[in-house]
Amino acid sequence: MMKFTVITLFPEAVEPYLRASMMWKATEKGLAEFNFVNLRDFGLGPHKSVDDTPYGGGDGMLLRCEPVFDAIESVKSRDTEAKVILPTPVGEIWTQEKAREFAGVSLTSGLETDSAFSNQIAAHYIILCPHYEGYDERILSIVDYKISLGKFVLTGGELPALTIIDSIVRLIPGVLGGEQSAEIESFSNGDNLEYPQYTKPYDFRGMKVPDILLSGNHGEIDKWRAEHSTKAE
Amino acid sequence: MMKFTVITLFPEAVEPYLRASMMWKATEKGLAEFNFVNLRDFGLGPHKSVDDTPYGGGDGMLLRCEPVFDAIESVKSRDTEAKVILPTPVGEIWTQEKAREFAGVSLTSGLETDSAFSNQIAAHYIILCPHYEGYDERILSIVDYKISLGKFVLTGGELPALTIIDSIVRLIPGVLGGEQSAEIESFSNGDNLEYPQYTKPYDFRGMKVPDILLSGNHGEIDKWRAEHSTKAE
Repeated sequence: MMKFTVITLFPEAVEPYLRASMMWKATEKGLAEFNFVNLRDFGLGPHKSVDDTPYGGGDGMLLRCEPVFDAIESVKSRDTEAKVILPTPVGEIWTQEKAREFAGVSLTSGLETDSAFSNQIAAHYIILCPHYEGYDERILSIVDYKISLGKFVLTGGELPALTIIDSIVRLIPGVLGGEQSAEIESFSNGDNLEYPQYTKPYDFRGMKVPDILLSGNHGEIDKWRAEHSTKAE
Repeated sequence: MMKFTVITLFPEAVEPYLRASMMWKATEKGLAEFNFVNLRDFGLGPHKSVDDTPYGGGDGMLLRCEPVFDAIESVKSRDTEAKVILPTPVGEIWTQEKAREFAGVSLTSGLETDSAFSNQIAAHYIILCPHYEGYDERILSIVDYKISLGKFVLTGGELPALTIIDSIVRLIPGVLGGEQSAEIESFSNGDNLEYPQYTKPYDFRGMKVPDILLSGNHGEIDKWRAEHSTKAE
């Protein structure tokens, strides 16, 4: 059972994604559990304030330490082993390799969980979604992993949080069922390759499926697919 | 007014994000509009099927052409200028520079919309969320932009779609209000720098704000911030 707790000011924006589709199936199968903490519940004063202006000047409001530490510690009080992930532009870039590490699935063992490695990873990740304008630097002292999705700016950490969760959960053995799809896709085996795929109908508006794919000659099909593979950027 | 139409099998998973927080504010201000098309509505036969097995063998089910073309053409019939974005691992990597291009905001003009550039971009983006197992290659013939979030695999195109939308919408002049925050953040000016920021309290559990930030000497503060900037990866 892998647990995720999302700490956010906007639980209503993130919860529905994890209640739908494959993420819901992972929950149904007892393979993953998603919890949500509203950071506002740990806000200060009558207005439940969670942010304030930066020392030294500058625009924007920064997340304060108190609500963040209180929220994280409320989760850790029930699970001292839980690890904290912070999506931030200065974090390490998220990759399929990292998703495997966090899922406890090694590259060589494929869909088998690598038990030696699994023992080293946390079964409970707390993901803190930062305010889009920034956070007090001292918050980093309670963070285990700083992760960046890429070289772009978002209004908050909610989409990075969901992206991190989705890419980990789909690797948990059993989540994608017997389809083996988790391992045959681009990136999964380190070769970052995609080849063109086709399904019915054979002729769609004059665009036909390459005849080689209908030949039944699997050696030739494999050769064609290798020749037509695109390296993903 | 910038329009986005998301074509997905899981509108219930993506719609709440765009109905909350800053995205909702953009709608309220009349600066953005979000529409949703359920791909299932264009499915084939009594089971509203949208996918089928690959020609030439292999695991997984691929999105078929007919439902996808029908869904996209139903939108384009009302707006012939709409452009189609497909999140796919073989697409170009999404960056802040691309977000600016799609938002029609140039690097030099800051928050001002660059009208010369704006005239070249579409005001309506259709984002097709692909099935996690793949799509028929011929679908690319109706796609204008192939975009990849990064080197990781997700269960579907929904999170990339939301990420693309969020990063574009926050750049639309007026969405973030008078805070100027869109332009002072990392990546926005091409220098990819973040410096440590602090807010109240001055002393949090013995961790104090660097005194220089309380000095009122803005020259020294700027110098300190430059020296302590981290290059985002």
